[in-house]
This record gives sequence, structure tokens and C-alpha cells, in this order.
Amino acid sequence: MSHLQLLDTYFSQHRSQHLEELFEFLSIPSISSLSEHKSDMVHAANWLANALKKLNIENVSIDETKGHPVVYGEWLHAEGKPTILFYGHYDVQPVDPLNLWDSEPFQPEIRDNKLYARGASDDKGQVFMHLKMIEALFATEGTLPVNVKFIYEGEEEIGSPNLPAYVEANKEKLAADIILISDTGLYAPGKPAVCYGLRGLTGVQINVRGAKSDLHSGLYGGGVQNAIHALAEILASFRDKHGKILVEGFYDNVLPLTEEERQAYQELNFDEEALKEEIGVDELFGESGFSYLEQTWARPTLEVNGVFGGFSGEGIKTVLPAEAGAKITCRLVPNQDPDEIVSLLRQHIEKHKPAGVDITIAEFDKGAPFLTPFDHPVIQAAGRSYEKIYQVPTAFIRGGGSIPIVASFDQILGLPVVLMGFGLNSENFHAPNEHFHLENFDKGLRVLGDYLHEIAKTTF
Amino acid sequence: MSHLQLLDTYFSQHRSQHLEELFEFLSIPSISSLSEHKSDMVHAANWLANALKKLNIENVSIDETKGHPVVYGEWLHAEGKPTILFYGHYDVQPVDPLNLWDSEPFQPEIRDNKLYARGASDDKGQVFMHLKMIEALFATEGTLPVNVKFIYEGEEEIGSPNLPAYVEANKEKLAADIILISDTGLYAPGKPAVCYGLRGLTGVQINVRGAKSDLHSGLYGGGVQNAIHALAEILASFRDKHGKILVEGFYDNVLPLTEEERQAYQELNFDEEALKEEIGVDELFGESGFSYLEQTWARPTLEVNGVFGGFSGEGIKTVLPAEAGAKITCRLVPNQDPDEIVSLLRQHIEKHKPAGVDITIAEFDKGAPFLTPFDHPVIQAAGRSYEKIYQVPTAFIRGGGSIPIVASFDQILGLPVVLMGFGLNSENFHAPNEHFHLENFDKGLRVLGDYLHEIAKTTF
Repeated sequence: MSHLQLLDTYFSQHRSQHLEELFEFLSIPSISSLSEHKSDMVHAANWLANALKKLNIENVSIDETKGHPVVYGEWLHAEGKPTILFYGHYDVQPVDPLNLWDSEPFQPEIRDNKLYARGASDDKGQVFMHLKMIEALFATEGTLPVNVKFIYEGEEEIGSPNLPAYVEANKEKLAADIILISDTGLYAPGKPAVCYGLRGLTGVQINVRGAKSDLHSGLYGGGVQNAIHALAEILASFRDKHGKILVEGFYDNVLPLTEEERQAYQELNFDEEALKEEIGVDELFGESGFSYLEQTWARPTLEVNGVFGGFSGEGIKTVLPAEAGAKITCRLVPNQDPDEIVSLLRQHIEKHKPAGVDITIAEFDKGAPFLTPFDHPVIQAAGRSYEKIYQVPTAFIRGGGSIPIVASFDQILGLPVVLMGFGLNSENFHAPNEHFHLENFDKGLRVLGDYLHEIAKTTF
Repeated sequence: MSHLQLLDTYFSQHRSQHLEELFEFLSIPSISSLSEHKSDMVHAANWLANALKKLNIENVSIDETKGHPVVYGEWLHAEGKPTILFYGHYDVQPVDPLNLWDSEPFQPEIRDNKLYARGASDDKGQVFMHLKMIEALFATEGTLPVNVKFIYEGEEEIGSPNLPAYVEANKEKLAADIILISDTGLYAPGKPAVCYGLRGLTGVQINVRGAKSDLHSGLYGGGVQNAIHALAEILASFRDKHGKILVEGFYDNVLPLTEEERQAYQELNFDEEALKEEIGVDELFGESGFSYLEQTWARPTLEVNGVFGGFSGEGIKTVLPAEAGAKITCRLVPNQDPDEIVSLLRQHIEKHKPAGVDITIAEFDKGAPFLTPFDHPVIQAAGRSYEKIYQVPTAFIRGGGSIPIVASFDQILGLPVVLMGFGLNSENFHAPNEHFHLENFDKGLRVLGDYLHEIAKTTF
């Protein structure tokens, strides 16, 4: 029998047992953001470490950080073969508002072949798939086709504040040839996707101050600058009316899309009408010369995320506001540098400062964009594994969002990152009634098992 | 003895008694905006009605409205002479924060020849001066040089919601030749002012909507319009960088300043440096070609009073906001029409609507500007009365703010309005430690008494 037939048989025979174990993992309320769940975090880390140990994974450790611990393990007996570093997270989002859940978030329940629980899709369910795939390979083949390392953190949902330092401090221990992350989704139901790029993020808060306190708009209006007007002028100066960003030098380092990428996106036949319906707009809006997928995956943005100033209660208050502010973030694409972009934003704001106000700028946390080249063998290999199981061509996609830790792996360890996820955008991660389609749990186990074999025979 | 000498003697002899009576009036906590003070409002109206009756004022009535009552009275026995309609208000502002008062707001206290109490300056103190001036004229001359009517409302501090209807319904009863209002201030300490014009007010709230809910700026950013950006473009389009309003037709009906007015303002030697110091700005800002006083008294404005949209908490939230809004008000000058201006604003917004959003506009209450011509005899007469008592040239000023009820009197009754006030901007009306300089109480009584004689001999 082929390795795929063996895996298939094994997963079929052990499905109930696997789900039982996953229920156990999911029932631990490992909410990283709430201090009252600190012992649950330890519990979940222990559970995971024990699960790794049962798989013959070696050097399993629960490594302390300044926050929640990192679970590590390895198996390095596939001599001469590549090493895959698996990453995932065992922490979950809070569950509020609880009354919107149809079943208890930490009492997993299967309805209509979907597993409902907090963390089912994001990310405990997918971390669990790594483990069961390893178990199946050992059970059916007695060994693994490649070397493996595991690093599972407990702080992804709070922005991975301690992981970069951990990775930096453990560079040698974490040395590998690929990082495989299962924390993203399919392109669409039945249509698998390899994500090979993500946008980065940087941003600033602009604070505008005019007079030392709000003034009466009757007594002073017409003779003193209005902080909101001044801010609006700056905000309006950032983009032209088609959304093209007017900050000088902003696009200078943008890596253009290759013809192959544009072709691949076009073949996805993205349904703009369905999108408009979904988000409730009459027209889409973006930089001309680029498709919607190109705009959101491979072009940088400058968005005002929030604005405030003056009186915003009901009715009218005839104040001449002394202060106004806006929060701005840019999604960055390869090869834009977050620090350089902030510096360009500062220059732009300085150049467009209206008369009669002072401006201060505060910087937000930054995250670099990441890209494993579209034609990298480990990306193409992932596509083949998906295709064997799902029986349709794999979508090669980027993500418009940012997972700062991915860029950290890329930058600190210098490895190609492969995002092989099995969730669906409709699965309510971060919301009530999070669930995971068990169809993708089942298929994903087989895809991951196959991928280890694909990597074993790939040269890169 | 001249009438001025007689008045002077009378006021000097009765000062303690007058202050005692004023203390009584000020001790009634007639806060119109707080329902728990409803009985105090009735108490204050009764007190005022009784005070009028004691003066031989006839047909005194407490007229019910949908809100707090109006106190009316008249004396019409100066045959062939003009009639002055006196207006003022017996309601006061709330007193919060109480802990910032150095003495109880409703236990009047004199410190350093200043009378401290809520309402001392705005407006009970000034209403009381009307009454005592009448008392003095009767006492010293046995009659009045002109006919008088009184209308004192209890809702000025909540925007006079019921007074226009009352005035409309009582047009004949209120018929007069002049309206005299004492609810404004001197130009500066020792420098009296006749205010002959006020700006009007109109405004809109602009609500911008993009998608049906906030979107993830990573997933959708670059392909969907941002409601705050769209709003900022509209706001920025309203003015050029010098503050000139770019709404088409906005200035079409603006009545230009006369040479006499510009001259009069220039002679006031307005201290721009002191203003910058006071409000804490390095530079003033306004339409070029006009002085600060011209900009704030006689030029219209368009101010954003408030703006909101997206996330305004601490830190960052990478939202692509679906909604944003701004509150805008325009101060209007003669002869701008509030309704027409709103219609021009609507056209401007429609013309500048960015792609990808819907806009709705809500209108705020409107108030017309008012102007009694600078050279009107009743204005010039007021200047003469001030000058006789204060011994310095009177300032002829406009106010940049709006007192909607003044425009209503102007429009409904069609009479010249004379604003003869005796407060000072530093007197904390609407704030803790409201007070009234008794020097201006004393001088004001004499000015008002003289003005009745001036009007008796003025042809207009």
C-alpha cells in the first residue's frame, strides 16, 4: 500500500479516539488574555507536552518565558533529510459574549460534522492535527520521512509578545529548513490554499493641537485654526481620490507581482459581486490597475483606523476644538521596511502641516511583511499535497493581514515559511460559535502526512 | 438738578437696599435645565412679577408656555413717546462642579466689590438693573420719559425653545419701537460697548457609511473605501488653507462691512498678542484681507465641531471603519440665510462625495444673524448714554456668537435690537464663581436711566 493508503486506513480506524483526545484538549479554557486562566494555560501546555512525549518526540520541554510558556519537542533521526519546524499556538480567544454561543465554548460538541468549541479551528484543532499526523506516520511506517521540531506558544492571541525573544535566544535549537504553520484557511470550501506571503504593518497616531483648550466657535471662530480641519487636511493629503497613496517614496521598494502570480490570482476567478453583497457596498474602491486580490494581497495601504476630536455626542455643541487625533496604519508588502515607511509618513505630515497647529506623532508596533517566493519548491510541494487529497488545483495565495510572528521567524531564522491551514473564514474564530469543519480535519491530516513525504524528496 | 444727578443721588441712597433685594432674587436656584428646580423657577417668576408690580408696572402677568413661564408687564402712559421692550431671563446655568466655588452659588456674597452668585452677571443681575432703573425714574421724576414693556423668560439657558412661539402669538401685546437686551458685556473693563450685530448659526451632521460593518483592514484594506478617509476628503474640501470657505455661493449674500465699521473696529486697537497668549497659540489663522475682529464679528465661518469614526481608544485596532461622522456649524453674518446656506452645504457635499460611500445629512437648529445698522439712531443714542457715565468713547461692536432669540425678535417683531450689557467676559458666567463687578452695576443703572431720556428725544 502507498503511504497515503496507509494513512487513510489509520486515520479512519482511529477517528473516534482522535476526536476524544481533541475534545480533551479543547476543554481546557486556555485564554491567554485573562489572568484568571493562568493555571489553565499551564494545564494546556502540560497536556501538549505529554501528547508530544507519547509520540516518541524527544527533548520535550515546557520553556518558561516572561509570559505563558512555549512547548518544544523534536525528532531528528531522518538522517540527511530536511527538518520541518512546526509552529502553532495552544492559547485561545476569550469567549464573550457567552450568551451568543449555542453550546458551551469549552464543552466541545459535533453538529452536522462540524466541531464546535473555542479553539476548534484557531488553533488547537490544527495543532492537534500536527500531532496525529506524526502518530500515524510512526504507526504505519515506523519512522518519519523528515526530521521534525515543534514550537507551540501560548501567546499568539495577545500578539506573541515574548516569542521573538525566545526564538532569538534559541536560534540553534530551532534551526530547520522549513517552518510549517497551520493557522490559516482554505481559499474556499473544497478549495485548498498555500499562503506564501503576508502583509506587514506599521502605523502612527497623529495628534493635532491648536489652542490650549476648546474655544467658543462664536467668539473665536474665523480667527483661530480648527484642530479637526487641520487634521482633515492632513488625512485628505495622504491619498488621491482613487486610493493611490501620495506619500513621497511610499511605493519605491514595493516588489512587483510576477506575471505567474498575477496569472494565478486571475485563475481564482474572485467573485467581486459576492464580496460586494457580503460587505454591503455598491462599489469596490482601490488603486487602479490592480485587481481586488492584487490590491488586498500585494499592494500596500494607508488606512485611517480611527479619528476623534471635538464634540461627538448627540446634537450640537458649537465648540472650536483645540485637539484632534487620528490613528493610521499601513499594510506593507515585500520589500517595504516598516521603519522607513514611518519616516516617510513623518516627512509627509511635516510637509503638509497646516498653519496654526502643533503636531505630535506616536508610533505603533511594527511588523515586517513576509514572502516565500511563489515558485519556491516547498511552496509548490505543499500545493501538490493538497491537490492529491482535495482533488482540485491548489490556490496559491497571499494574505492581506499580518501575522507579525511569521515575519519574525522569517527574519530571525531565515527560513522559508509555509502556511498550510485548514480553517475556513466562516468558522467564527474570535467570535461565538467557533467551529471547525471535520471534513477539513480529516483531509488535512492526510495532506500533512503526505507533505512530509513530499519534502523528503524535494530538493531546495 | 439734571435727571442724571437725581438718579445718582437716588441710587447712592438706596444701594444697600437694592443689593439686599438682588441677594434675595439671586438666592432662588432657578436652574432651568434641571427638573428638580421646577418649583424654584415658579418662585423666581413670582418674585419678578411681584417686583414689577411694586414699580407701578401694569398688566403684570405670568404667562404659561410649554416650558417655564414668561413674565410680562408694561407701562404705557408716555403719550407720543417711543416704547422700549426690555428683555432678559431669570433662569440660570447649573452650578456643577460645586466644589470649585469659593462661596455657595445661591448664597450671594460680595468680595472686593464683586458680587458672587450664580446669575449675578448672567442674567438676573442685569434684569434687576432694569427694574431698579424704572424705580429710580418714578421716584425722582414721578413718571417715565418713554413707554416700557418687559418680557423676561425662564428658558434662555436651554435655548429659548418656547419663546419664539410666545412672541409670535403675542405680537400685538409686544409691539414696541426698540428692544433693549442687557445680557452681553463691556468691550473691556472700563470700556463700554453697544453690540449692534450678532452672527447667526446653522449646521449639519454629515454621516458617511461604507460597508455594512467595520472590516478587517488586513483582509479588505486596499479594495474597499474607508469611511474616515471619505469624510476627511469632504471636510478638507470645505476650506482653502487660509480658511476661506470654498462652498460655492457661500459668500454671495454677505453684507460687506461699511468703511465706518472697519474704522470703528480698527480704533479699538485689538491686542492680538494678548489673545495669542490667552488661548495659547503661536499664530492666529483666518481669511486674509480681514482683521481678527472683522473675521470673528463680520465674516461667516464653517467649523468642524466634532468628528468621530473607527477606533479611538488607546493603542491600535486595525479596523477599516464602515462609519464616520462630523458635526459642522457655520456662523452666519447679515444677510446670509440659514436655510440657503444649508442647501449650499448639501450641494457641496453631494458634489464632493467620494466613491464607495453613502452620505446622509442631518440639519441642526438654525438661527438667523441680526444687525441693527451701525448708524441707527437708537444705537448711537446708546453710545452717548454709556459715554456720559463711563467718560470714555463707547465701542460699537458686534458679537461673533449667536443669541437665536435676538434674531427671532428682529424677525418676528421687526424692531431694532439694542444690546446694552454690563458684564465682563472674565465674570465666569456658565462656570464656577460667577460674579458681577458692582462698579458696572452702579454705572449701568445710570446708563439705562439716561438711555430712556436719550430715546425720548431721539427721532427714528
